[in-house]
Amino acid sequence: MAEVKIPKATARRLPLYYRYLQFLHDSEKTKFSSADLSEAVKVDSATIRRDFSYFGALGKRGYGYDVESLLAFFKRLLNQDRLTNVALIGVGNLGHALLNYNFRQTNNIRISAAFDINPEITGTIQSGVPIYKMAELKDQLEQQQIDIVILSVPMEHAQEITDELVKIGIRGILNFTPIRVNVPEEIRVHNVDLANELQTLIYFLDNFKEDGSLINPLAKENLTTTDLND
Amino acid sequence: MAEVKIPKATARRLPLYYRYLQFLHDSEKTKFSSADLSEAVKVDSATIRRDFSYFGALGKRGYGYDVESLLAFFKRLLNQDRLTNVALIGVGNLGHALLNYNFRQTNNIRISAAFDINPEITGTIQSGVPIYKMAELKDQLEQQQIDIVILSVPMEHAQEITDELVKIGIRGILNFTPIRVNVPEEIRVHNVDLANELQTLIYFLDNFKEDGSLINPLAKENLTTTDLND
Repeated sequence: MAEVKIPKATARRLPLYYRYLQFLHDSEKTKFSSADLSEAVKVDSATIRRDFSYFGALGKRGYGYDVESLLAFFKRLLNQDRLTNVALIGVGNLGHALLNYNFRQTNNIRISAAFDINPEITGTIQSGVPIYKMAELKDQLEQQQIDIVILSVPMEHAQEITDELVKIGIRGILNFTPIRVNVPEEIRVHNVDLANELQTLIYFLDNFKEDGSLINPLAKENLTTTDLND
Repeated sequence: MAEVKIPKATARRLPLYYRYLQFLHDSEKTKFSSADLSEAVKVDSATIRRDFSYFGALGKRGYGYDVESLLAFFKRLLNQDRLTNVALIGVGNLGHALLNYNFRQTNNIRISAAFDINPEITGTIQSGVPIYKMAELKDQLEQQQIDIVILSVPMEHAQEITDELVKIGIRGILNFTPIRVNVPEEIRVHNVDLANELQTLIYFLDNFKEDGSLINPLAKENLTTTDLND
């Protein structure tokens, strides 16, 4: 079988495209152009056409793309026809916000169990989700067949809890702690590092000129950015 | 003047390197290798050496990198010698978590003003930060010379508030809403889309095999990912 190379950056944009298709569908639109999509998701048209090309002929030249059929395609591609249950570990301020975050509104994902060490909240239901003790982690993840976990614990506990999760057999971690955790190769970790995001924004604002070149006050040369398609 | 091209992906990794240098410094370490850094931040050594190379000779072959001098370099590069004040708009669940998030611990950033429409919290101080009415937005941002804003408002208000921010003259937005807002070219928006992050993790888990190839149940071919260096 021939192998087609698909960039990770493309894979990362797919949920965004899917969400726009849902929006069009809800607005009873029947077709759209790559320019429409580009305007809505802020990704340039050429990149969108290239992304779509990995999945074969999704549109017709001069006609654009059909909302209904593309929505069905992305729905299957992104496994949106079934609900994915995930667990949340750490119900502090951020964890609490995540419990209240409507993942289900645009994506078919639900936090179905949360875990914490605080005896004031364990054994209760918060925002519709049961909060279990950490001692119940293994049993609950197994019973609920959950293998994806959102980690929002204090950073000093991140690695120790990750080790436990690995032993239990989870497959993926969405890591909100500033620690880069050690995991075996077969486990996937996505890091959402809020301080880093803000720092990067500030760095770009301070150093990048409107034409895309980078002002580096510490080097003799002016640097220019290259957009590596992400 | 010669221009050196620096990838955006490199710029995005700089805060991560900086944080590790702080950690080493706090642990009274005096030098490190790219392998040490690689292990800590989960970026491969070759990428680290390439990132560093954009900034000239930062280390000596066979010796590694000097913590003190590199920390000083990154501190100036990332403007960490001065505090950056930012504003938070929208103190709901997520906004509340962001108010309590310690941006200052590793990065010299502080939320110095927050804004909301809820009369129960406006005029109060939450987690040490004053919460102003939306009517005070322009005056406060101007008085406090804030030009970077964290946006965590309900998605239906995201564009309207962004338009207001643009008029006021802010330069950067860290956007936590699932909406991709319209802004003039000179304004930089970084999107942190939590549902998207989780969806992407699930997509990768469902479709990528351990060898990096992508299983696409909808195409006749197996797809292989290419890592575009981010």
